[in-house]
Amino acid sequence: MKKLHVNLSGGRDYDIFIENGLLQKAGERIKEVFQGERIAVITDSNVRPLYADTVVSSLEKAGFAVKLIDFPAGEQSKNLETVVQLYDGLLHPDPFPMTRGDLIVALGGGVAGDMVGFAAATLLRGIPFVQIPTTLLAQVDSSVGGKVAVDLKQGKNLAGMFYQPKQVLIDPQTLKTLSDRIFFDGLAEVIKYGMIRDEKLFQLLEGCKNREELLPHMEEIIRVCCHIKKEIVEQDEMDTGERMVLNFGHTLGHAYEKLGHYSTYMHGEAVACGMVAICEIGERQGITPSGTAQRLRALLSTFGLPVKAEKVPIKALVETLAYDKKGSGGSITLVLCKRIGEAILQKTSKETFAQWVQETI
Amino acid sequence: MKKLHVNLSGGRDYDIFIENGLLQKAGERIKEVFQGERIAVITDSNVRPLYADTVVSSLEKAGFAVKLIDFPAGEQSKNLETVVQLYDGLLHPDPFPMTRGDLIVALGGGVAGDMVGFAAATLLRGIPFVQIPTTLLAQVDSSVGGKVAVDLKQGKNLAGMFYQPKQVLIDPQTLKTLSDRIFFDGLAEVIKYGMIRDEKLFQLLEGCKNREELLPHMEEIIRVCCHIKKEIVEQDEMDTGERMVLNFGHTLGHAYEKLGHYSTYMHGEAVACGMVAICEIGERQGITPSGTAQRLRALLSTFGLPVKAEKVPIKALVETLAYDKKGSGGSITLVLCKRIGEAILQKTSKETFAQWVQETI
Repeated sequence: MKKLHVNLSGGRDYDIFIENGLLQKAGERIKEVFQGERIAVITDSNVRPLYADTVVSSLEKAGFAVKLIDFPAGEQSKNLETVVQLYDGLLHPDPFPMTRGDLIVALGGGVAGDMVGFAAATLLRGIPFVQIPTTLLAQVDSSVGGKVAVDLKQGKNLAGMFYQPKQVLIDPQTLKTLSDRIFFDGLAEVIKYGMIRDEKLFQLLEGCKNREELLPHMEEIIRVCCHIKKEIVEQDEMDTGERMVLNFGHTLGHAYEKLGHYSTYMHGEAVACGMVAICEIGERQGITPSGTAQRLRALLSTFGLPVKAEKVPIKALVETLAYDKKGSGGSITLVLCKRIGEAILQKTSKETFAQWVQETI
Repeated sequence: MKKLHVNLSGGRDYDIFIENGLLQKAGERIKEVFQGERIAVITDSNVRPLYADTVVSSLEKAGFAVKLIDFPAGEQSKNLETVVQLYDGLLHPDPFPMTRGDLIVALGGGVAGDMVGFAAATLLRGIPFVQIPTTLLAQVDSSVGGKVAVDLKQGKNLAGMFYQPKQVLIDPQTLKTLSDRIFFDGLAEVIKYGMIRDEKLFQLLEGCKNREELLPHMEEIIRVCCHIKKEIVEQDEMDTGERMVLNFGHTLGHAYEKLGHYSTYMHGEAVACGMVAICEIGERQGITPSGTAQRLRALLSTFGLPVKAEKVPIKALVETLAYDKKGSGGSITLVLCKRIGEAILQKTSKETFAQWVQETI
């Protein structure tokens, strides 16, 4: 069992537990941080048949009354219409309507965590919630740090807030039921942590040839990623400075996702292409050591991740940049790779960046 | 000119300015707290023709680029569908799409403040915003304290959060264009402050016979109300303790509003009836001095406010209590009047409260 503590002001501290088989102990863990009696577990239609029974049983064994709600799996559910359906389920008097004194559990991948977090943050002006992420992407990234959101038609995660969970429970055994594509999608974010903060993590990944070779390392890999993320979040919870390094590969990644209508590329796949592209730009600008993009491409390819997305038309790129949450007026904060294991932030005009993209990739 | 400072942690302090003619100086004031260049002013269809030009001119004179957005006036607009329309307007590239570095101004009554605040709190995970309340209700209550929300079909203000403005600009001259009904609707909340905290304020109101006699006192009345509210908010920003006294008359008030489908009673009117009812209950329970309800009824009647709503069917009341944000499990926090100028909190089971209501009113 590995435990990390996220230090935040105002009594918003919380623990992240990483342990094989943790789903069966969810009730005991939650009892340590929640003194109420009633819990709503929200999950998606894919995760429900796999893990809802285990979690609900564990909660009931710990003495909680439980309400189970699900929504259709997939990014296309991550919108305000689904949030309204979650509100309906949460407020429905059968078996009980939720109050501020109750707790919400988000069980599932990034969509569940982000959207359930949004519902928890807003219903009755905030109901406490616990994250139980079941995909690699959610375990190493979206479940930690309190960013919750839904998509708007203008782009991904455009409506949201910062709302920290009371606890994050990570059971690496849930990774076993992921398809290769979804598993490796999450691995793209793991590789990102190596790129921005931890060359040793990058080297560990380079030493593995496939999913089987990664598996014995997963508990430790998740711990390292969560540790990096929690340290960055502690420094800059509201994402106005240092936290932006977590956005490495994401500026172009978001454009790729959007142009593929969120179906061509999964999030990690788009970020994979975005990381390679920003390394190529960095190399051309003399910021990133030459050969970096090649080394990154090699690692991504080992795990079947894409390394080059379709060319983005300049007009579409500029449009996407307009909705970049890191942007402000005419400028944008780019995350560039200084060397593998170190990223730097650089404020650039949107025009300059668009030009760099046109010239380089 | 009167100025109040709201002390909050984490750099979220802000000033409230109260001054006749302040709308014309909005640009100068905002320049003191906002270093950016672009501002979106959001208002409703009633307020737009009255005050939007004045505010936009003042902002442009101060050097800001301004985008003006409106929505249909009225409580029936205060929902997530309208919020999505506000997002559309805010993100629209003409004349500029909003970024986190820009500012939103909420110009109007309680609906504008609450809903624009919700949009500001959530778009791109938070855009700074300034409140310019133009109704008495908004000036003494909803614009101060950071509560933002929209209604759900299950009840009022059920989706929202705490999101503090950067500044509150109150121009009492805007009260001149209010109809009597809307003016006195706000006065019900003024009377509430007298009931819970300030007997002198209550007596000042008792000394006035009509709207004309109130007018010379309005700047000071607004200051006193904002001062009470800001002191309570400073003690209990997140509404888990002392702040609940602000809810005096609101538990039943919300039920009356809901049963009237938000059209029979305006908010202050429903609160007026709710205050009388809770005083009657308090008197019957031996908590409120006898004669209090009568003195309150007399004051409310002077200003044409209702003092008795239609009887609430017990089933409907219990249903409304289920969605009371102050509730938790089977209990509810009641605000009772100990004497005029002092309120106390009392946790009661929902059943007991429903029984009191049935017996008393």
